Amino acid sequence: MFPEVKGINEECGVFAIWGHPEAAQLTYYGLHSLQHRGQDGAGIVTSDGEKFHGHKGTGLLTEAFQAGDLDDLYGHHALGHVRYATAGGGGYDNVQPLHFKSEDGGMAMAHNGNLVNYQILKSDLERSGSIFQTTTDTEVLAHLLKRQGSKHLRKQLHGALPQMIGAYAFTVMTENEIIVALDPHGLRPLSLGRLGDAYVVASETCAFDIIGAEYVREVEPGEMIIFNDSGMHSERFMEAEERALCSMEYVYLARPDSNLDRINVHTARKQLGKQLALEADVDADVVTGVPDSSISSAIGYAEQTQIPYELGLIKNRYVGRTFIQPSQELREQGVKMKLSAVRGVVEGKRVVMVDDSIVRGTTSKRIVRLLKEAGATEVHVRIGSPPIIRPCFYGINTSTTDELVAANHSIEEMRDMMEADSLSFLSVEGLQVGIGRDASQPNCGQCLGCFTDRYPTAIPTENKALIGAGKG
Amino acid sequence: MFPEVKGINEECGVFAIWGHPEAAQLTYYGLHSLQHRGQDGAGIVTSDGEKFHGHKGTGLLTEAFQAGDLDDLYGHHALGHVRYATAGGGGYDNVQPLHFKSEDGGMAMAHNGNLVNYQILKSDLERSGSIFQTTTDTEVLAHLLKRQGSKHLRKQLHGALPQMIGAYAFTVMTENEIIVALDPHGLRPLSLGRLGDAYVVASETCAFDIIGAEYVREVEPGEMIIFNDSGMHSERFMEAEERALCSMEYVYLARPDSNLDRINVHTARKQLGKQLALEADVDADVVTGVPDSSISSAIGYAEQTQIPYELGLIKNRYVGRTFIQPSQELREQGVKMKLSAVRGVVEGKRVVMVDDSIVRGTTSKRIVRLLKEAGATEVHVRIGSPPIIRPCFYGINTSTTDELVAANHSIEEMRDMMEADSLSFLSVEGLQVGIGRDASQPNCGQCLGCFTDRYPTAIPTENKALIGAGKG
Amino acid sequence: MFPEVKGINEECGVFAIWGHPEAAQLTYYGLHSLQHRGQDGAGIVTSDGEKFHGHKGTGLLTEAFQAGDLDDLYGHHALGHVRYATAGGGGYDNVQPLHFKSEDGGMAMAHNGNLVNYQILKSDLERSGSIFQTTTDTEVLAHLLKRQGSKHLRKQLHGALPQMIGAYAFTVMTENEIIVALDPHGLRPLSLGRLGDAYVVASETCAFDIIGAEYVREVEPGEMIIFNDSGMHSERFMEAEERALCSMEYVYLARPDSNLDRINVHTARKQLGKQLALEADVDADVVTGVPDSSISSAIGYAEQTQIPYELGLIKNRYVGRTFIQPSQELREQGVKMKLSAVRGVVEGKRVVMVDDSIVRGTTSKRIVRLLKEAGATEVHVRIGSPPIIRPCFYGINTSTTDELVAANHSIEEMRDMMEADSLSFLSVEGLQVGIGRDASQPNCGQCLGCFTDRYPTAIPTENKALIGAGKG
Amino acid sequence: MFPEVKGINEECGVFAIWGHPEAAQLTYYGLHSLQHRGQDGAGIVTSDGEKFHGHKGTGLLTEAFQAGDLDDLYGHHALGHVRYATAGGGGYDNVQPLHFKSEDGGMAMAHNGNLVNYQILKSDLERSGSIFQTTTDTEVLAHLLKRQGSKHLRKQLHGALPQMIGAYAFTVMTENEIIVALDPHGLRPLSLGRLGDAYVVASETCAFDIIGAEYVREVEPGEMIIFNDSGMHSERFMEAEERALCSMEYVYLARPDSNLDRINVHTARKQLGKQLALEADVDADVVTGVPDSSISSAIGYAEQTQIPYELGLIKNRYVGRTFIQPSQELREQGVKMKLSAVRGVVEGKRVVMVDDSIVRGTTSKRIVRLLKEAGATEVHVRIGSPPIIRPCFYGINTSTTDELVAANHSIEEMRDMMEADSLSFLSVEGLQVGIGRDASQPNCGQCLGCFTDRYPTAIPTENKALIGAGKG
Repeated sequence: MFPEVKGINEECGVFAIWGHPEAAQLTYYGLHSLQHRGQDGAGIVTSDGEKFHGHKGTGLLTEAFQAGDLDDLYGHHALGHVRYATAGGGGYDNVQPLHFKSEDGGMAMAHNGNLVNYQILKSDLERSGSIFQTTTDTEVLAHLLKRQGSKHLRKQLHGALPQMIGAYAFTVMTENEIIVALDPHGLRPLSLGRLGDAYVVASETCAFDIIGAEYVREVEPGEMIIFNDSGMHSERFMEAEERALCSMEYVYLARPDSNLDRINVHTARKQLGKQLALEADVDADVVTGVPDSSISSAIGYAEQTQIPYELGLIKNRYVGRTFIQPSQELREQGVKMKLSAVRGVVEGKRVVMVDDSIVRGTTSKRIVRLLKEAGATEVHVRIGSPPIIRPCFYGINTSTTDELVAANHSIEEMRDMMEADSLSFLSVEGLQVGIGRDASQPNCGQCLGCFTDRYPTAIPTENKALIGAGKG
Repeated sequence: MFPEVKGINEECGVFAIWGHPEAAQLTYYGLHSLQHRGQDGAGIVTSDGEKFHGHKGTGLLTEAFQAGDLDDLYGHHALGHVRYATAGGGGYDNVQPLHFKSEDGGMAMAHNGNLVNYQILKSDLERSGSIFQTTTDTEVLAHLLKRQGSKHLRKQLHGALPQMIGAYAFTVMTENEIIVALDPHGLRPLSLGRLGDAYVVASETCAFDIIGAEYVREVEPGEMIIFNDSGMHSERFMEAEERALCSMEYVYLARPDSNLDRINVHTARKQLGKQLALEADVDADVVTGVPDSSISSAIGYAEQTQIPYELGLIKNRYVGRTFIQPSQELREQGVKMKLSAVRGVVEGKRVVMVDDSIVRGTTSKRIVRLLKEAGATEVHVRIGSPPIIRPCFYGINTSTTDELVAANHSIEEMRDMMEADSLSFLSVEGLQVGIGRDASQPNCGQCLGCFTDRYPTAIPTENKALIGAGKG
Repeated sequence: MFPEVKGINEECGVFAIWGHPEAAQLTYYGLHSLQHRGQDGAGIVTSDGEKFHGHKGTGLLTEAFQAGDLDDLYGHHALGHVRYATAGGGGYDNVQPLHFKSEDGGMAMAHNGNLVNYQILKSDLERSGSIFQTTTDTEVLAHLLKRQGSKHLRKQLHGALPQMIGAYAFTVMTENEIIVALDPHGLRPLSLGRLGDAYVVASETCAFDIIGAEYVREVEPGEMIIFNDSGMHSERFMEAEERALCSMEYVYLARPDSNLDRINVHTARKQLGKQLALEADVDADVVTGVPDSSISSAIGYAEQTQIPYELGLIKNRYVGRTFIQPSQELREQGVKMKLSAVRGVVEGKRVVMVDDSIVRGTTSKRIVRLLKEAGATEVHVRIGSPPIIRPCFYGINTSTTDELVAANHSIEEMRDMMEADSLSFLSVEGLQVGIGRDASQPNCGQCLGCFTDRYPTAIPTENKALIGAGKG
Repeated sequence: MFPEVKGINEECGVFAIWGHPEAAQLTYYGLHSLQHRGQDGAGIVTSDGEKFHGHKGTGLLTEAFQAGDLDDLYGHHALGHVRYATAGGGGYDNVQPLHFKSEDGGMAMAHNGNLVNYQILKSDLERSGSIFQTTTDTEVLAHLLKRQGSKHLRKQLHGALPQMIGAYAFTVMTENEIIVALDPHGLRPLSLGRLGDAYVVASETCAFDIIGAEYVREVEPGEMIIFNDSGMHSERFMEAEERALCSMEYVYLARPDSNLDRINVHTARKQLGKQLALEADVDADVVTGVPDSSISSAIGYAEQTQIPYELGLIKNRYVGRTFIQPSQELREQGVKMKLSAVRGVVEGKRVVMVDDSIVRGTTSKRIVRLLKEAGATEVHVRIGSPPIIRPCFYGINTSTTDELVAANHSIEEMRDMMEADSLSFLSVEGLQVGIGRDASQPNCGQCLGCFTDRYPTAIPTENKALIGAGKG
């Protein structure tokens, strides 16, 4: 419950709504559609114009909120958040939105992203007397705001945001204002929509679809949008850099029905699969994808190669904290928890298994074995993204270079380790083309740091230390 | 909680294991894989050879069982059950396995299916003094067993089962014996497997895969298998009729990774989609299926027609009883709970929407509208099964003929009602061929009653009354 | 959850209300005041005149009923029950009211007491085909009713009740009738009250006080009272025997604010304490009682002897199933769970410790030690009832004669075992006089079986076997 | 969940243990015995020497902690807290111990008491950049500590504590140290004990008794005790003022088995009752107390007057947040939730009703009515403390002078309002004598502020404003 201090936060989803009588309920459904971005905590804070009302809890949205919990969340304005945390970094205290109380009024904040200079900012703040109750970037921003010598949130943000380096999609609410801001590279997605007279902002457009809201446009890199009784007002807190939207959002993170930067995720993924087929065809009987994130690329691969697409792997959807895990003994005896191979589909077949990406390689190895135990005669592994050779500093995962299998092994070594009959990755150019970007540009609208070691922002030396001594 | 008396039970899943030290845990994971067959209750009873231990509860498996609930379920033998119930027929009392206590020892029972002569049997029993605490067929069998004048379960079953008409897959356990039995037509699926020295029986083979058990064979129509310290013993309580396995198991009910009667469900469904394409091709831009049950047939349809398969519809997976439902007002304002259409995929496209079946037609109508609102220029509805013109008396659904849209309207009328650009159903022959049966035979191994009005068993007159005055 | 078959049930509380629009709520509060009679389960069934609605659960009332659970319990008539069970006999299935469904309509039943011929009746019923799902006496009555060859509950009861021997306070409800009945000896308490136009019946009058109902009279031994749309109607199903109300109700079971047979329990207990002082005075500094049941008699003892009454023992009120029990190790290190001695009160003092009764003697021994460890120089144990030398067959406890310390040891032996400085019991005459009965009569309105071996009813031989070979 | 900012906190209980392998479990049982001091939240933080582990939740201890929640609380050192909050000031965020994370290591804090200069300190801190997430005094102390320019907790406390005015018993833990501190007047109780080699500190000594620990001595006013690997070290952070322990701890707050400042609470209360009898005897038939806090003084009153003491009022112990409250309608119809009068005891009697104190007078009025409705012919109200004419600024209650009935009405007016036959309060001198203090001294070891308007500390003007325009 009280996590250790660590500087790297995780993927999350944010949602904000301004000016709707059912603000809390709509936020709940918006968060439901963002549930895939974080299953470790969920919270909603509303403002009725004079004060705040809130509820949050650990676990899935349906675990954090019980019948009646929305009833007291009065007001027409709301922020919501779903949180993803590693085992060590969970706990109620870090569940957002955070809420701060001061003589001048309160402030609620929810955030998706990761600041690369979090530790530096935090140390500075602590040296001048700040104390911290969470390990979130959000709390750092709160302290920075307070130090700006202004009572106006807008001015505070103009002073504080330029001090922050990294990926961030912030939503901040006072009693009578919501402000959202996106980092100058637009590393994280953030979209603006309308629902009648109300404004909505969300990490993914699927949150608009579920509540029947209409997509308006992307929040732009370096842009700050203010919602208050005078309506909506946009201004820039920093010059926009070239957009460098996280590639992994397309590769596995976002929901297939979302559009990111106006590009549909399913369509992009299917194109990645087709591109992969062009680059690494193979003679086989069936194509199968690893559910859920690789389904679209597997379909694309099958369509391009004309090899039939089949459900060769099935996900067992155990949900929530209350699922009773099997004992180690049973696990060793073969109790399968996450995936089952479909014997009726793969037995006696040469199988192309399409997966979205490889981090440590252990999952891929397990799936190859599953398929072979179910009777597959050959298993050809095809990965819908390039080898990951460097860690992400912007909120995706915390693997160090040492742990990244592709940073330390050749493709042939990896193939051998996972006992596959062949293994191919998509090229970096193929990734860019698949998403629909101009591959002749260095970043081409996407962040490619984990594939190329070229990060869009500076990275503090102490973070760099994480990169370690990989061979790749 | 105390449901009204009604004679028609619902789909369920059963699981039994004989002779494994982790019987309760394995039953839990087996039931997890059968969760799609019933989300309204779950229970496990174990025997340690001398007495019973049990736990059951309403809702999903993860709601019915909390941490620690398995710990007291001692013994090497177990029965498990997941229950599906309509709104009116739920409640703890009907959650199985049922457990009966008598001087001669206890008996636990779990059942999947529906007896067509339930009311007649129950009335007879009540007239001679039986009292009932549930509205399950299972309790009728318990009373019949008790009336057979023998203390031996095997003899009791030989006397009782032949009195029962309808679909049933029964599992019964005494302190030192498990007996399973399948109705003479094999209307419901029931498979036998092994896990080391232990025996397992389950409604679907996916329950074997999750625990690493090996498939042995189907339980045969009219067969009774006895598991006890002498091992496994098979005998016949009635002559087998021609197998008439429920067609809807293949069409939408079973999990795609299960094999029923040795036929893989995903493969059968894909073949149904291909067959449908052969019978009802159309010029279009994308094919999409209604998740989850129509995905396989949509893939088959796309493969046959060479029209790209896309994720045009996304399911919102709200889980468990604790999900807070939107108010009617929000629903009318467009909050979508079950399905979202993917604008990025269907906008400006001519869409083939493949669904598994049509009962009342209201869902199809809603999906057509969703797709058109998301920008589809045409929506062609293709149904992977024939029109349902008669009710099912064997446990699938309780719609009367009056409620079945295909029983009362022509296909053109239905197309018009759902505002689709075209509508086609699979033919009865196409269904048989798709599943892989010999279409020249009347039932060809499948029950086709709801499509053809030709039921494999007699149907009591009072049940017949349900058929009503449909025009179809 | 599925208890073993055993013939001896436990103390419970029943509540019934006829003709009030808030029947379910009032039953909830009535049961709350009866919570001391049973903490292992609680249930309410209502009738709206046409059908039943019910909810029940294990544990305390507040555990069995959550917010909203009362909302669906429509109707003006209700039965309620709180259940006490030993470790082995708990579980949801035995929670009452039981509910039976038949073609002729349903029936709900709740019961307090114990039938001495339960096993005999049950065996007979099983031999003629009845099957049992619980181990309650209530289910036996249900079967007997069904065998009476009448559709009228009243007639069924006239036929069934005379077959039952033992202690029983039954409440039975059909859709449009409630009938309550008390055994011919009135072994268990059952009172009748009014709340406006509504009728209420409860095990103790404290349930009337909490809902503001007015006491009318006792239900009489052998009486059956019928409540229906024609009002209230009393009739006799058996001739009343001399009343033999359970003495232990006065000694420790009932709430001090209840009146049983028109005698206030606190007042009776205080008189028992005074009587005890008259019989067994001692020179000491303070009197203390064992909370909660011995407080009144300790006050009486102190008042009579003029020794100051003090709070020398304090109860730690851990509540509900969720209290985390200390490990055995901590218990041995001195973590005290039930009682603490108050050092500030007893240190350096000669203490009279008044307790209500002694069953196995282990508790008394522990309390003497607690007091001495807290500095008491002498501990004189005074018991507000006679030595218990025989088991109870009417629902109080299941100790066999072998386990009853007073059946096997002299008073001096017991004093020595519990390391007390002196030990005295109240005499049987003192008990009768204290309660306010005529001690010259054999039973004088009270059952004294456990003190005297003279039981008011016949006891079947197999039950007698329990009495064993005690020396006492 | 997010309470409004307010400066007055409430009664609570603290517990700390240093150096025991079962620190978390022992803290749990310690908090259980302090449950009466706060039912709105509970928490435990442990240290294993290197990092913290914690769990907290709203409600009773048994609601905040579920099975398993103690299992992860590793370490030999622990702080625990139970929290009392008014309706507006509850919520998870304020549940203690609070936990702060910094580069130099973490800090956990739990507190009982109230700072009178809380608002002033907080405003100062906010002006220099502090932000607040709770409305507890504890967070103010945390910020003050951080501002002291030292990394050593001991030095930080020496700097911070003297800035704080009011009542406080603080416990603070770093990874390898626990420090406890009591305000210079010793307004709140805090005792030191030993359990083998471990040290324990608790708000009341009953927490020692439950875990089998031995009382050592009081923590002294102005004392700070440091527990670390070198053992225990005491030092003074301010000169002790004359002790001014809160009188209401003796009057109603503390548990009767606790000793405060070496005086047993039950014994003190009984003496207050005797003193009251000396000051205000009356001719009556029975004496009764209002459970639970007035039982001891009622016994004392009865003993002194020789009028029999009886259980004339019974408390209905509804527990936890899940108790379903009666509707307003039922309440008006007479459903009694808190207290029932025992008709069998008071009917036809002249009753002395002893209560501990009167704040607004509404409860007393309700009890007089209860007793009269139950048949009491006269009700004489006797209060075991003097009239409360001023608010408490040290954490007891937040009533303003306007709301205090005794501040605005004569005793005769009050008697008339509550429809009692007579009404008497204990004198201030009687209170001092009863507790065992020297009544010739102004404060004589006790704080008497609420009775006399003479507070032991300065009170800031803005707090003074609360006192208002009472006539008294």
